[in-house]
Amino acid sequence: MEVSKKLSNSSSEAPYNMIIKAVGFIRNNINKPFLAAGDSGIEIQGEFDDIRAKIRKSSQETSEIIINRELVGILDGIEQYSHLLVFYWAHKVPEKSRLLTKVHPMGRKEAPLAGIFCTCSPARPNPVLMTVVKLSEVNGNVLKVTGLDAVDGSPVIDIKPYFRESYPQEEVFIPEWMRKLQQEAHDCQK
Amino acid sequence: MEVSKKLSNSSSEAPYNMIIKAVGFIRNNINKPFLAAGDSGIEIQGEFDDIRAKIRKSSQETSEIIINRELVGILDGIEQYSHLLVFYWAHKVPEKSRLLTKVHPMGRKEAPLAGIFCTCSPARPNPVLMTVVKLSEVNGNVLKVTGLDAVDGSPVIDIKPYFRESYPQEEVFIPEWMRKLQQEAHDCQK
Repeated sequence: MEVSKKLSNSSSEAPYNMIIKAVGFIRNNINKPFLAAGDSGIEIQGEFDDIRAKIRKSSQETSEIIINRELVGILDGIEQYSHLLVFYWAHKVPEKSRLLTKVHPMGRKEAPLAGIFCTCSPARPNPVLMTVVKLSEVNGNVLKVTGLDAVDGSPVIDIKPYFRESYPQEEVFIPEWMRKLQQEAHDCQK
Repeated sequence: MEVSKKLSNSSSEAPYNMIIKAVGFIRNNINKPFLAAGDSGIEIQGEFDDIRAKIRKSSQETSEIIINRELVGILDGIEQYSHLLVFYWAHKVPEKSRLLTKVHPMGRKEAPLAGIFCTCSPARPNPVLMTVVKLSEVNGNVLKVTGLDAVDGSPVIDIKPYFRESYPQEEVFIPEWMRKLQQEAHDCQK
């Protein structure tokens, strides 16, 4: 792949304010994010082995997604899908962390600094996180799902159907440091 | 799957305004969305066969993602990935279309109305769209990608790495009507 260092001019063409309206919120037993944003980047909250165990546990845990009652028709037919994409706002990320451009991946100081867009850091210019979940039950405006490691109370931005066909069928490559972290933690794509 | 009709109380717990800041914008030759939001839902723009041809063409077309210059460190290392998730704002969707809760999927009046969260409609409460793209070149703050069918000028919200491991390895099911539309148009997951 060609990589050069020339910079192009850029300007935002947003025609109106891009304001997110919460369509609901998440309820579960995850009270603290695994990674939190500190002054110098993201920091892992506790020992790495503990975190790893918590991540594994959370991936099996059930969360409820409670959609605002006035929007309830928006879910009609959702039970026909086995998996959904949940978009939510990382509401525990402090406002100033949105200014970071690089972090140590997964808060591990021994890993080289990487651009935020190369990582799954919750501290991002726009803390919009996304996770693929398994849908297990629909009760009116409440979805029960597994695999959602959002923190309790996170505002929900959107829900979309998941189809395998929309993802790469060809070979995919990722950096070696990310492959190692992935294997260690099974935690990303948020 | 259990589906019942009980409604739960819900309230947003957003602790501060959720305002999206554009981190850049998209430049390509796609000037009109394939689907546009009309008064009664989304409508396909032109004949379905033409649209299908355009969708196929756009999936091979190159787009540039121009990241704001002041954020450029945020891309460091991005060339180590073959595929990225691009999150962008559907800026051509009129504000009032964010109030819709049901649409005819892909604007096809013969298909039954479906809740917006069961569809890929760009008219959503929060028009945050997401596409998986193939990265072909990095030039400073400009990424060249294929597979991005966003409209020219769309504000970019976020870029995240794509890993196959974060998606379901188990069986996935989707409704029959969606499977048909998918086969016809190869267009979704946005």
